[in-house]
Amino acid sequence: MFIPRDSVEIVEVGPRDGLQNIEQFVHTKHKIELIRRLAESGLVEIQIGAFVNPVAVPQFKDMRDIVAEFAGGVPGITFTALVPNLKGAVEAFSAGLRKIAFVFSVSRYHNLSNVRKTPEESLEELKDISRLREEYPDAVIVVDLATTFGCPFQLTVSPESVLHYVAMVHDLGFDRITLCDTVGFGNPRQVHDVAAACIASFPDVTFRCHIHNTRGLGLANTLAAYGAGIRSFDSSVGGLGGCPFAPGATGNVATEDKVFMFNEMGVFTGVDPRSLVETSRYLSSILPHVRFESALFRAGLPAAVSFPE
Amino acid sequence: MFIPRDSVEIVEVGPRDGLQNIEQFVHTKHKIELIRRLAESGLVEIQIGAFVNPVAVPQFKDMRDIVAEFAGGVPGITFTALVPNLKGAVEAFSAGLRKIAFVFSVSRYHNLSNVRKTPEESLEELKDISRLREEYPDAVIVVDLATTFGCPFQLTVSPESVLHYVAMVHDLGFDRITLCDTVGFGNPRQVHDVAAACIASFPDVTFRCHIHNTRGLGLANTLAAYGAGIRSFDSSVGGLGGCPFAPGATGNVATEDKVFMFNEMGVFTGVDPRSLVETSRYLSSILPHVRFESALFRAGLPAAVSFPE
Repeated sequence: MFIPRDSVEIVEVGPRDGLQNIEQFVHTKHKIELIRRLAESGLVEIQIGAFVNPVAVPQFKDMRDIVAEFAGGVPGITFTALVPNLKGAVEAFSAGLRKIAFVFSVSRYHNLSNVRKTPEESLEELKDISRLREEYPDAVIVVDLATTFGCPFQLTVSPESVLHYVAMVHDLGFDRITLCDTVGFGNPRQVHDVAAACIASFPDVTFRCHIHNTRGLGLANTLAAYGAGIRSFDSSVGGLGGCPFAPGATGNVATEDKVFMFNEMGVFTGVDPRSLVETSRYLSSILPHVRFESALFRAGLPAAVSFPE
Repeated sequence: MFIPRDSVEIVEVGPRDGLQNIEQFVHTKHKIELIRRLAESGLVEIQIGAFVNPVAVPQFKDMRDIVAEFAGGVPGITFTALVPNLKGAVEAFSAGLRKIAFVFSVSRYHNLSNVRKTPEESLEELKDISRLREEYPDAVIVVDLATTFGCPFQLTVSPESVLHYVAMVHDLGFDRITLCDTVGFGNPRQVHDVAAACIASFPDVTFRCHIHNTRGLGLANTLAAYGAGIRSFDSSVGGLGGCPFAPGATGNVATEDKVFMFNEMGVFTGVDPRSLVETSRYLSSILPHVRFESALFRAGLPAAVSFPE
C-alpha cells in the first residue's frame, strides 16, 4: 500500500456542520470569536454557516451579521457558506461572500427529507444558481453530493449512482465537487474505490471529501480517500456535526485529529493542531453540555507534535 | 493505494488489556461470563488475563480460577495469557495454557518502568522461557514488542531499534512477533513502513499488530498495517485498555469497530460485530463508571451489517 506525500487542503466546516445540529443558540459574538480563532490556526477556508430557512434551522438566523463581521476579509482565508437552494445562494452572494457550497443528496429519500426536492429538482435549482455567475463572475461554487457513501433511508448508494450525479453536475459546468459521507456509512475500500472512480472519470474536476466519524471509520476513510487521490477535506473542529435530517449522523471527523494524522505522516496541512485543540476547548466552554468526540481534545497532544512539516 | 482482500485473524485481548487498568476488581464469575460471550462471537483466540504479580495488578489474582474454568477448552478457540517474565510463563503453562504472549518494551525507559528490566535483561528472560518448550513441546510463545511506535518517556522509537529487537527475538528461535503501539503514538505511514520493513526482513516470522486508539488513529493505523501485509490484529472489546505504566495510554481499538471495518470492506474476519456490541453492553453493565470509547457501542450498528462475508 503506497501512502502519498502530497500536501492536503483542510477546509473547516465546524461553524456550519458543527453547530447546525445543536439546539442551543450560539451567540453571534461567540460564533465570531470561534471563526477568529480558527482563522489563526493556518486554515485556508472556513465555512462560517448556512443560508437556510431560519425557521427550520434557527442556529443560522444571524448569518448576515457574521458575514458582515468578516466583510473586510482575513488575508489568506476564504470564507464560505452552505446553501441548499437558489434563495440561499442569492443571499450569500448579496451578503458579500464569493464562495458557496451548494448541497443536495444523491439519495432520493434523503434529498426529499432534507430539502423536499428530488435530486433532479435540486439539479434544476443548481442550473438557476449557475446563472448567478453572470452577475458574480468571481463566484466559486462547490457542489456537495450528500449521502455519497450511504443513506439512513435507502442504506446503500451505488457507485454508479454517484458517478451519474457527478456527470450531471459536471455537465452544468461545475468542476469542484465534494463527496460527502453524510451519515458515516462508508468503509475504506468503498471510499477509496468511489473516489478513485470519480477522479479517473472526471480528471478536470477537483474532488473533495467530507467524512463523518459516526462509526469510528472517519480517519481510516480519510486515509483511503487520500490514497485514492483526494487532496482536499472538510472537517469540523472538536468533531461536532450532524445533519438535522439524517438520524444517527453524529460527528464529523475532528479537524484537530485529521490535521494531526496528516502532520504526523509528514503530509503538509499548514495547520497547527495545538491551536485547534485550544479552539475546541473554547467551543466546549460555550457548549458545556455537548459531548466532544475529538480524540485529541480528550487525550491531549503528545509532548512532541509535528508542525509545521 | 491498493487495499488487499485477504482474511484477517482477530485476537481478543479485552479480558487482559481491557481490564488491567481498571481499579474495580471484576468478579471472577463476570470475567468468565465475559470470556464465554466473546467465545460465541466467532473469535479464534482470546487472551483471558495476565500472570503477573497480584500485588502490582490485583485484577488478575484469580487467573488460576479462570484458566481452570476453561480447562476443557472451547472448540475452535485458543485461550492465551500475557506474561512479563519466566515466573508468569511457568505459571501459565502449569495452569494448563499452551499459548502465551511474552511482553517487553523496545524502549529502555518503558521496560524499566514496566518490568524493572532493560530490554536486554528481558531478552535473557525470554531465553529462559524458551527452554520451557522442552517441557511443553506443544507450547506456542508469541513475543509482544511494546512501544514499537512510540514511548511516553523517550517519545520516538526508531525503526532501526524495532528491527534490532525483532532480530534478537528471531535469533532466539521465535517466529510470532506482535508490534505494539502501546500508547497510541503511531501514525499510518510509520505503522505501514515499520510493519513492511519487518515483514520484508523476516519473511518466516508471522507479525501481528496491537494498536491503541489514544489519539484516534487506531483504525487508520490498522488499515495501514493491513496494507503493509499484517493479517493478525489484537483488539479489545468496548475499546477498553491501557497500560498501568504508560501515562495516557487509554483505549485499545474496540474489537467491534475493527471487525466492522474489515467486514464492511469485504475482508473475512469470521466475527459477528453485533455479538461484540452485545458483549460491550454486558461489560458496561458490570463497569457502569467506565467510559467506553467504542464507536459502535455508542452509535449502534447500521440497519444493514456485513456478516459473514
